[in-house]
Amino acid sequence: MKFNIKDVARKAGVSISTVSRVVNESKVVKPETHEKVMKAIEELGYKPNAIARSLKIKNTKTIGILIPDISNQFYPEVVRGIEDIANMYEYNIFLCNTDLDQEKEIKYYEALAEKQVDGTIFIGNIVSQDLYKKFKTYDIPVILIGADYEDVPSVGIDNVGASKEIVNYLIKKGHDRIAMITGKNYDPVVGIARLEGYKNALNEANMPIEDELIVEGGLRFKNGYEGCRKILELESPPSAIFVANDEMAIGAMRAALEQGISIPEDLAIVGFDNIDMSAKVYPSLTTVAQPMYEMGAIAMRVLTKILNDEILDSKKIVLNYSLLERESS
Amino acid sequence: MKFNIKDVARKAGVSISTVSRVVNESKVVKPETHEKVMKAIEELGYKPNAIARSLKIKNTKTIGILIPDISNQFYPEVVRGIEDIANMYEYNIFLCNTDLDQEKEIKYYEALAEKQVDGTIFIGNIVSQDLYKKFKTYDIPVILIGADYEDVPSVGIDNVGASKEIVNYLIKKGHDRIAMITGKNYDPVVGIARLEGYKNALNEANMPIEDELIVEGGLRFKNGYEGCRKILELESPPSAIFVANDEMAIGAMRAALEQGISIPEDLAIVGFDNIDMSAKVYPSLTTVAQPMYEMGAIAMRVLTKILNDEILDSKKIVLNYSLLERESS
Repeated sequence: MKFNIKDVARKAGVSISTVSRVVNESKVVKPETHEKVMKAIEELGYKPNAIARSLKIKNTKTIGILIPDISNQFYPEVVRGIEDIANMYEYNIFLCNTDLDQEKEIKYYEALAEKQVDGTIFIGNIVSQDLYKKFKTYDIPVILIGADYEDVPSVGIDNVGASKEIVNYLIKKGHDRIAMITGKNYDPVVGIARLEGYKNALNEANMPIEDELIVEGGLRFKNGYEGCRKILELESPPSAIFVANDEMAIGAMRAALEQGISIPEDLAIVGFDNIDMSAKVYPSLTTVAQPMYEMGAIAMRVLTKILNDEILDSKKIVLNYSLLERESS
Repeated sequence: MKFNIKDVARKAGVSISTVSRVVNESKVVKPETHEKVMKAIEELGYKPNAIARSLKIKNTKTIGILIPDISNQFYPEVVRGIEDIANMYEYNIFLCNTDLDQEKEIKYYEALAEKQVDGTIFIGNIVSQDLYKKFKTYDIPVILIGADYEDVPSVGIDNVGASKEIVNYLIKKGHDRIAMITGKNYDPVVGIARLEGYKNALNEANMPIEDELIVEGGLRFKNGYEGCRKILELESPPSAIFVANDEMAIGAMRAALEQGISIPEDLAIVGFDNIDMSAKVYPSLTTVAQPMYEMGAIAMRVLTKILNDEILDSKKIVLNYSLLERESS
C-alpha cells in the first residue's frame, strides 16, 4: 500500500502539519495530540522514519557510502565512479570506512540514517544479517556493490564465470597443473565464488582437483606472498597459479621473483580485479578486469532512479568483465 | 572585536530571534525589518555567514575534504587518517574529488559551505588565488595538507630538506652523476621544492648541475616511464635517478627493466612519498616516507582544536619524514 500522510491525519483527527510536527519531533505539540498521532501511525502500520522522510521539505541530497577501506587499491576507483555520478545529480557523499568490522558497519549505517542521507551504497563482499536487518528498519534505499544479498539491489559481475574463464585460458595455454590461492573460506566472493569457477574449469577439462594445490589466502599482498611460497615448496610445483585477487597475485609474483623463478617462463601467475597496480608491475599481471569505475557509477545511477521513483529494469545488475592478457602468463 | 549577536539586535531595534530569522533567510520577516537588520549587520561589519554559523542550534558535525583524486595512490591513506580522527570526534566526512581543476575546487568549496560543514580540509599542492579568496569569504576553518599558502593552517613535511637528504644518500653511495625527473615546473611541491633539494645537494657536494640530467615529468606513472627513457637515451646516462614521486619512479623502473637494465646494479632509482605500491614492486623502491596517515590524522585533529576554540601551538605543522632504503638503490 502506498503511503498517504492524509490517512494518518484523518485517523488521528488532526491536520497534516500536526502529523509533520510530531514525526519531526517538534516540541510545540501537546502530549495528547502526540499520542493520538503516534497511535494512528502505529495502527496504519507506517514507519515514522518513512513518514519523516516523506515530510522533509527537501531531500538532503546526500548519499552515504560504507566501504571496507578506502586505502585498499580496489575501492578508490569504485568511489570515484560513485562520486562522478553523484556530482552530476548534485549529491554529496558521506564516506565511512568500516574495516570489514560488522559493528562499525551498523554504527555507521545508523549515523548515516540519523543524518537523513537520501540513500546509501554498501561496498564489500559480505552483508551481515544484522546489517540487513538495519536496512529493513530504516527506510533508506541501499545498493550493494560486490555483494549480492537477498532482495537488496546490487551491482556486480559473474565471479564464478569470470574465474572459470581465466582458468580455462591457462588450460588452453597448456598448463596441466594449476594451483589457486583463494580468499578466506567464508568470503562469498573471493573465497567461495572464485574457487567455484576454478573447480568448474578443472572439472570440465577432466583435470583432477588436488587439495594441495588450493591454498587459502585472504585479500592482502602478504597472503599471496605466503601462499605462493607454500605452493613453491611442494614436491612438484604447478606451472601456473590463479590468485583470487590482484593484490595477492602481486605478492605471489614477488615470492617467485625473489627465488629467481622467471615469470611467465617457469611459472605463470594470473590475478583478478585489474587494480591500478596490476598494469604497472613488471612483469605486468594478466587478470580479470572488473569495471570498477562503472560499478560505482552504475550503482549511483540506480540509486538516483530509486530516489526519483523511476522503474528499474532489474534489481540485480550483472556487468561484463574482460580477460586482460599481460606479461605474467 | 568579538562577535555579539546582541549588538546587531540592539542596533536594529529588533529581537535576537528576528536577526536569526533574517540571516537564516526565513520568509516570515517583513521587508522593512529585513532591511533594518541587514543595515545593522553591515554597519557593524559582521559577515552574515559568520552570524548564521554562530546562530546554528548545533554544529552539523560534518567536515568537507577537497582532494585531487581519491583513486590516486597517495591520497587514500591521508583520507583514512582524517576519517579515523573524524570518527573519534564524531564528525562525518563529505568527500569531493577536484581533479586539480580550479573551477571544480571553487564549486565544491561553495557547495560544502552551503551544506554548512563545520570545517574543510584541502589536500593538494597548489592553492589558487581564487580558492584562497573563497576561504576568506566564508568563515569556515580550513586546513591544508601538502600545500602551504599565506596564513592558512597547514600540515606537511620539509620537501626541500627531504629531497636534499635522499640525493645526499645517493652521493654517499658513490653516484657522481645523478639525474632527476621532476614534477611540473609550476607545481610548488613536486616541481619546485623537490628540485631545489636536488640542486642543494649537488651544490654542497660541488657537483655540476647539468640541464640534460633534469627532465620535467608530472605526477603519473607515464611521466616517469617517458622521463626515464629520455634519460637512458643520453650519450652518457647517469648511474642514478631521483624521481620526484613514487608513481613516476615505478614508471621509471619499468622503462629500465624493459631494456634489460639491472636495478640497482646498472641504475639506482629512488622515489618520494612511500605509496603503498613502492614496497610491493620488485625490486622494492627506496623512497622518502611521508607520514601520510599521520598528515591526515593531525590535520583533522588541528581542525577539531580550531572548532573548539583551543589554542594552536603552531599554524604550520611540519612533520618528520624518513628515508627508506630498499632494493632499488
